[in-house]
Amino acid sequence: MKNFKLTIEYDGTAYHGWQIQKKARTIQQEIQQALELMTRQKIVLNGSGRTDAGVHAMAQTANFKCTTDLSAHVFQKGLNSLLDDDIVILDCQEVPENFHARFDAKAKTYKYRILNRDLPSAIDRNYVWFIRSPLNIENMNQAAKHIIGTHDFKSFEGTGSPRIHTIRSITKAEFTIQDNGFLSFHIQGNGFLRYMVRNIVGTLADAGLEKISPDEFRQVLLSKNRNNAGITAPAQGLFLMCVDYES
Amino acid sequence: MKNFKLTIEYDGTAYHGWQIQKKARTIQQEIQQALELMTRQKIVLNGSGRTDAGVHAMAQTANFKCTTDLSAHVFQKGLNSLLDDDIVILDCQEVPENFHARFDAKAKTYKYRILNRDLPSAIDRNYVWFIRSPLNIENMNQAAKHIIGTHDFKSFEGTGSPRIHTIRSITKAEFTIQDNGFLSFHIQGNGFLRYMVRNIVGTLADAGLEKISPDEFRQVLLSKNRNNAGITAPAQGLFLMCVDYES
Repeated sequence: MKNFKLTIEYDGTAYHGWQIQKKARTIQQEIQQALELMTRQKIVLNGSGRTDAGVHAMAQTANFKCTTDLSAHVFQKGLNSLLDDDIVILDCQEVPENFHARFDAKAKTYKYRILNRDLPSAIDRNYVWFIRSPLNIENMNQAAKHIIGTHDFKSFEGTGSPRIHTIRSITKAEFTIQDNGFLSFHIQGNGFLRYMVRNIVGTLADAGLEKISPDEFRQVLLSKNRNNAGITAPAQGLFLMCVDYES
Repeated sequence: MKNFKLTIEYDGTAYHGWQIQKKARTIQQEIQQALELMTRQKIVLNGSGRTDAGVHAMAQTANFKCTTDLSAHVFQKGLNSLLDDDIVILDCQEVPENFHARFDAKAKTYKYRILNRDLPSAIDRNYVWFIRSPLNIENMNQAAKHIIGTHDFKSFEGTGSPRIHTIRSITKAEFTIQDNGFLSFHIQGNGFLRYMVRNIVGTLADAGLEKISPDEFRQVLLSKNRNNAGITAPAQGLFLMCVDYES
């Protein structure tokens, strides 16, 4: 059995997320089907984790095993010709047989884009959360500092997280200001609970809107109670940027 | 009669261009219909010029006249609530009654985006021309310099240009290198023939691919013969960036 690792860019707009579902088009399903067509075998594609409907990836990772004479390069070319152009296989490599895209992931980085100005963007409508009211970025960054380190993120957990515990370590959490009202929030950690990034961003937006202070944001974290946190920020602003493994 | 000027951002992906057509969805039609709904009058919306199917605009301009008590601000808000979110009215202003978005335009700036690397982009697939073979950017910029100034652009004219003559003045034509293989070509001039920007970019790509030299590009321009020029670059890389008027 050979084991292959894929690095995948996708526009999540047209998909019901990563994970295979009955009666809904998903990224995992599209790639798995293409692999089954190429190998004439039943294939199981293990993603580094799920992304929700409408969430994008610049570099999702996944692995699959099969008995094949096809090279990694042939898999990459074949997949890119079979898949719609909103999914691009950026890389395919043969990896040791014990490599697992989810279990071996050491860190993930997400980007969340906000557009904070009077008017939404036609071009970027599927790639940003539009917030009209002015945001206090300094407050948001002060609040964001409180999640850096190892914490219990129960307050920011969506229902149905497939997890053993809710403790995660965050190594980066910062907003940077781009042109024309665009903001990028980069967050890196050793793992994320379901909806965790979007729930954190939704609550940081409350700090930006001065509904809560940076210290009240910290109280939300410490309370370990989802009811104290803000809304789940919309899916379309979220990008899985990279998944790190020990090399 | 009042006269209003609109500044419009749109994602051209889902439209058959600016200009009203029978049996096809266009930007002009969508906005005109919304204005007719708001004013209960027959409205004629004059764009600064057409954009082709799939071409985008960061700031197209247009004007319309009507007898109304509605303010420019109410028109802007009303249009933005009536239109789909791939069209955004960035600005609406009352202007002198003799203002005409097309006849009064003094200059236009377009951006054309190319992605030059091994792999296409899932996220940007509708906003870029993907060229896999390496481009010689220096050649492209040397070639592009030849169009600066006042020239007869017959070689780069698409069939069916609504024009009196084919002489135009170009004040800027330059590629700049962005991150990750993205290139932006900015071109500014006092007016453009049909398909002119896309035909110029298609021919500049030939210079980038070293099929022709910068001097041969100049010969194409001087020949005044469309058959000597390259392909029409695809619509989705093109953005109308701004339309200038005397203030």
